[in-house]
Amino acid sequence: MEAYLDNSATTQCSKRACDKMVELLRVDYGNPSSLHRKGMEAEQYIIEAKKKIAKTLKVNEKELIFTSGGTESNNLAIIGTAMANKRAGMHIITTSIEHASVLNPMQYLEEQGFQVTYLPVDADGIISLSALEEAMDEETILVSIMQVNNEIGAIEPIEEAVRIIKEKNPNTLIHVDAIQSYGKLRIYPKKTGIDLLSVSGHKIHGPKGSGFLYVKEKTKIRPILFGGGQQKGMRSGTENVPAIAGLGEAAAEIYENFEANVNHLYELKEALVAGLLKLEGVTVNGKTGRDSAPHVVSASFAGIRSEVLLHSLEDKEIYVSAGSACSSNKPSISRTLKSIGVKQELLDSTVRFSFSIHTTMEEITYTLEVLRELLPVLRRYTRH
Amino acid sequence: MEAYLDNSATTQCSKRACDKMVELLRVDYGNPSSLHRKGMEAEQYIIEAKKKIAKTLKVNEKELIFTSGGTESNNLAIIGTAMANKRAGMHIITTSIEHASVLNPMQYLEEQGFQVTYLPVDADGIISLSALEEAMDEETILVSIMQVNNEIGAIEPIEEAVRIIKEKNPNTLIHVDAIQSYGKLRIYPKKTGIDLLSVSGHKIHGPKGSGFLYVKEKTKIRPILFGGGQQKGMRSGTENVPAIAGLGEAAAEIYENFEANVNHLYELKEALVAGLLKLEGVTVNGKTGRDSAPHVVSASFAGIRSEVLLHSLEDKEIYVSAGSACSSNKPSISRTLKSIGVKQELLDSTVRFSFSIHTTMEEITYTLEVLRELLPVLRRYTRH
Repeated sequence: MEAYLDNSATTQCSKRACDKMVELLRVDYGNPSSLHRKGMEAEQYIIEAKKKIAKTLKVNEKELIFTSGGTESNNLAIIGTAMANKRAGMHIITTSIEHASVLNPMQYLEEQGFQVTYLPVDADGIISLSALEEAMDEETILVSIMQVNNEIGAIEPIEEAVRIIKEKNPNTLIHVDAIQSYGKLRIYPKKTGIDLLSVSGHKIHGPKGSGFLYVKEKTKIRPILFGGGQQKGMRSGTENVPAIAGLGEAAAEIYENFEANVNHLYELKEALVAGLLKLEGVTVNGKTGRDSAPHVVSASFAGIRSEVLLHSLEDKEIYVSAGSACSSNKPSISRTLKSIGVKQELLDSTVRFSFSIHTTMEEITYTLEVLRELLPVLRRYTRH
Repeated sequence: MEAYLDNSATTQCSKRACDKMVELLRVDYGNPSSLHRKGMEAEQYIIEAKKKIAKTLKVNEKELIFTSGGTESNNLAIIGTAMANKRAGMHIITTSIEHASVLNPMQYLEEQGFQVTYLPVDADGIISLSALEEAMDEETILVSIMQVNNEIGAIEPIEEAVRIIKEKNPNTLIHVDAIQSYGKLRIYPKKTGIDLLSVSGHKIHGPKGSGFLYVKEKTKIRPILFGGGQQKGMRSGTENVPAIAGLGEAAAEIYENFEANVNHLYELKEALVAGLLKLEGVTVNGKTGRDSAPHVVSASFAGIRSEVLLHSLEDKEIYVSAGSACSSNKPSISRTLKSIGVKQELLDSTVRFSFSIHTTMEEITYTLEVLRELLPVLRRYTRH
């Protein structure tokens, strides 16, 4: 039996999304910038994808920019708004547990003279709202907060944060990295007061190399890639129509049967957490209830190095992640785990399990069985 | 009969490339950053694609960075080297007929304080080597020249240009936009002395959203997208493995039967040019012999607006481009055509025909027949 429990790293592309891609790679392969029919048809596919996505977020189709993925979406949101608004101020706020595709653009902006405040989080990975309130000032042009943390599945209090931000400075732009939450939680940028929101396709059974950035109408932002002026100049380069259309399908699909799917994910999570806590020397990090993301479980295994556990599980066709695994394959100590205060000796003994709507309860049961047999064996080896 | 003669805008993805993509979207869908087997397998596909591409250019696999396409490759090459080398100088040279994905990054750099020289071209679109020699100085950190112009198919004298640049300043980096030439001309960066070379996948029957930048080992360049540190930190973001592997297939394929394919393209070009010149009031822009690109023909039709011609041809299932059509679909007056001195009254009467190796002689014959009937009719309408 195979159990692919690394869906926060990447998911299998759905048949529907993949079929659509093939159609647009092989049959309707026109360039949307071409003035003839094949170009018009290609553009039509983009419009259809926008409609499908806009519906899931209750936003305007015109407010979507397609990118090459989550990293580009986050870079465009952060660098793009910082550069466009620097006359209004040079201060940005983010959190200490963001993904590298947020933290590293922040670092780049610091080099360019911006000042960045990194909000601390509590033991569950939840940001400090009082620290946010304190950090906000007239110079704050942007606050970037993830909706769901990719390593431990913490859900950040976006609505409360937005309220505080708007109260302290109504001009501050708010960016939400929704890469781990889109398709698992409902989020409505307009209702919540979010100005920019990043999504990646391959986390929701869409194609790799696809993603989008929601940008509220009239938000001041400048492009980070320059060229032919596609997408109203905000993202030059021939639109990746097959990936865009595939992403549209995946977005529509992931919000079909939404409640049932999310419930299924929570049931998987509850079963895995309950099973893990019955095992000796296992702790689960962060919240585990329905106030946490439905698809992510982070667990620490005392006395076992995460890489050893990962490879032992792999031998049984169980695929998990050591740390976040969203970044290039050097396993390094996780900022998130450190930030929530995971004990030093457990930092390198932590593994992430992440589900998709296609994950079955059998896979969870199988994984728990394997772990029950494996852990004592691995601990014995470690002691020698 | 259909004649798709807009292959410089985009090509149909080959079956081989598309099949490979489907395999990696649906079966081997791992994230190369994952430490388990599915991650390793995904990484293996990247290595294989690199090998295939490296072979076509006679470069080292390690010198390839995968991007989301030609626009990103050009942006990374130009902004990335300018930012990394600005202490050595702030002067850059390019040509007046580059693609927007070169010219617009240049404009961005000018805003950042760089000084850019735009080399003039002659009536055939060939750059002035004496102007290049004159423009070169100790402050010149980068020269960017396209190998083949996308609108008229001019082949630039890259080898001679490299010799002049290296003689005047051996530290100057040389970037070649090979987006229109890769797969149609042979180019060996190491032998020629090129430091950076951009390629786009969807111009060679590869997937949209794929491309690469060759960067000679030890070239100082900084990334333009920040995040998880993939591709040795030069291009963060989960690698688009399906597109990368598809690009690898397309690159291998396009260089199979290379001589025969290129010969076929030249035969198409010769037939089209000969046929066009027999028609009244038609001029062909730039060189048309085997010293020009095999797949591009630019022709001006006196007294007929290019958009009118384009749509009339479209009615006969013949797809061509007005101007360059690589940029967003506002038809604007072409810089290239202006630069080569196309008469004012013909600027808006020019159409580009561009072939792929799958274009047949029958399509050319059909196109010429249609034009022969169409032109007098269109001119009659115009006169009324």
